[in-house]
Amino acid sequence: MSEIRRSVHLKQRPDGAPGRDDFEIREDAIPQPQPGEVVTRTIWLSIDPYMRGRLREQQTYAQPINPGDVMTGETVGEVIASAHPDFAAGDVAVGARGWQSHCVTPAERLVKLPRHAAPLSAYLGVLGMPGATAYRGVTEICRPEKGETVVVSAASGAVGSVAGQLAKRAGARVIGVAGGAEKCLWVQDSLGFDDCVDHRSLDLHRELAAACPHGIDAYFENVGGAVQAAVFDLLNPFARVAMCGMVSQYNEAEFPPGPNLGFVVGKRVTIQGFIVSDKPERLAEWRALAAPWVAEGQLTYREDVVNGLDNAPDALAGILGGRNFGKLLVRVGGDP
Amino acid sequence: MSEIRRSVHLKQRPDGAPGRDDFEIREDAIPQPQPGEVVTRTIWLSIDPYMRGRLREQQTYAQPINPGDVMTGETVGEVIASAHPDFAAGDVAVGARGWQSHCVTPAERLVKLPRHAAPLSAYLGVLGMPGATAYRGVTEICRPEKGETVVVSAASGAVGSVAGQLAKRAGARVIGVAGGAEKCLWVQDSLGFDDCVDHRSLDLHRELAAACPHGIDAYFENVGGAVQAAVFDLLNPFARVAMCGMVSQYNEAEFPPGPNLGFVVGKRVTIQGFIVSDKPERLAEWRALAAPWVAEGQLTYREDVVNGLDNAPDALAGILGGRNFGKLLVRVGGDP
Repeated sequence: MSEIRRSVHLKQRPDGAPGRDDFEIREDAIPQPQPGEVVTRTIWLSIDPYMRGRLREQQTYAQPINPGDVMTGETVGEVIASAHPDFAAGDVAVGARGWQSHCVTPAERLVKLPRHAAPLSAYLGVLGMPGATAYRGVTEICRPEKGETVVVSAASGAVGSVAGQLAKRAGARVIGVAGGAEKCLWVQDSLGFDDCVDHRSLDLHRELAAACPHGIDAYFENVGGAVQAAVFDLLNPFARVAMCGMVSQYNEAEFPPGPNLGFVVGKRVTIQGFIVSDKPERLAEWRALAAPWVAEGQLTYREDVVNGLDNAPDALAGILGGRNFGKLLVRVGGDP
Repeated sequence: MSEIRRSVHLKQRPDGAPGRDDFEIREDAIPQPQPGEVVTRTIWLSIDPYMRGRLREQQTYAQPINPGDVMTGETVGEVIASAHPDFAAGDVAVGARGWQSHCVTPAERLVKLPRHAAPLSAYLGVLGMPGATAYRGVTEICRPEKGETVVVSAASGAVGSVAGQLAKRAGARVIGVAGGAEKCLWVQDSLGFDDCVDHRSLDLHRELAAACPHGIDAYFENVGGAVQAAVFDLLNPFARVAMCGMVSQYNEAEFPPGPNLGFVVGKRVTIQGFIVSDKPERLAEWRALAAPWVAEGQLTYREDVVNGLDNAPDALAGILGGRNFGKLLVRVGGDP
């Protein structure tokens, strides 16, 4: 075991897209756990679009990260030292946070993982926060009925790919929106969506309308911008919009104006924002429900792996630019 | 009984604010009722902001009124001829529609009214569609809890005045927004709102913030525009927005852009549109609930009466410009 801990700190708030220069690597000694704490060696680090919001000065639903702070991010790691009776060296756990080779975490924030039920990385994606996000958005807000049309943006991403498959399970007609032909093909062929529209199309509006001849009954929103505008124009009466994210604008200093909300009245639309961590009990519920589906191949997912903690800043820039294909992960250390 | 029926027809679609020249008066003989129909002599005609939407070419949630058509509007009238066993001459009923001295209506659309429980005009306002609108928006969407802050725009209007009083009954702190000092005073002193902000203020944003030191937990939206923008900036996490109308833009040919919806995610806001007529059973429920409150003076309302059917076009222009003070009614005929 290395005696050195490597950590990625925010150096300065990014102006626009984050770059490598906005972060710095620091090294220190791996701390000993205080009573109640656990030290994990990071195996996988999750990279997610919400991280860009934490780099802003304004507080949103969580405290901002300030220059000098370690970057935040969920990890799967192996316990190397424990000062809590529930954890022992060699255990594998999810829930430690930090762009770090080693994390020190209060034991109550960690969830011990089974070693051979699913690949460990899955607990950061399909069986983790992104999967539970899709589960909440679809079951609590979109609530698709058989035969309804559901649109999912960022359809090949960690959240969108699960959201669309859940809507299919509910019997809906599911249309994805993704960036580029390769992603669209995968969304249709591997995920089983009924259609997928390329948001880079020169006539997104027309193509989406053609894919949704009966209008749109529910929308799982991950991107905002032009995709949101095109979808909103096609919403049916009593449509539900699950507002999960608007990644297209996360690098913008000023957010552009949005839709005039007159249609919300006339069409009796519900637009509802949610944050997965507000109902942590639903993550456990989702893991229990979906683990067999993953094991049996009934729930498809795809991972995009970047090697090495030092490449995490580039990975974050990539996910904000839509350059990942599937759940984005940084491989920080070897499997146990 | 006059043998002549007088009706107001749409002559041309208004460009901006509707004017007298956009309508024309026609006269014909009062028809005889066909089997199942009832003929009423109009006593009161309700004037409501939604009527402007019907003058547009585009269909919203209801069919547009086309040039040549009789204008639509709910009335209270006295039955003068009936071809249905449930109605007899001398009965008073609500539900006949038309800017007309006499309406011919299928009996199933009419509700017979008690003669002395409340003033007949109340069945078009506090005990009618506007009251039921407030009831649905507050109980189904705003759902105020004791101690929460609720903002109601168009607070002195037929809907807003009831919405705010219902939120007060639920134990909320209620802030109105209205146009001008006289309306604001009435909203506070007579309706019992905790405060009322004048939307004509030069610094609406600051005044609203001062009136809502703990932010805004629910918003009953009737106006849109600058008021909506100011309210949205002050919404608390998990706020609920009942989208009832956006009267400030009803005369506009093109609707202006609206809010960037990023805040909906971060604050987990729910924005929900509704149309009262989607749940007609709740109107009956509301009438039964609120009639004793009105009789006992526990629910305050105010009426703004325009005399004569021929003045209905001016009345509509007035309500769209915020020139009414309370529920706007046209007195078409004398009491029974």
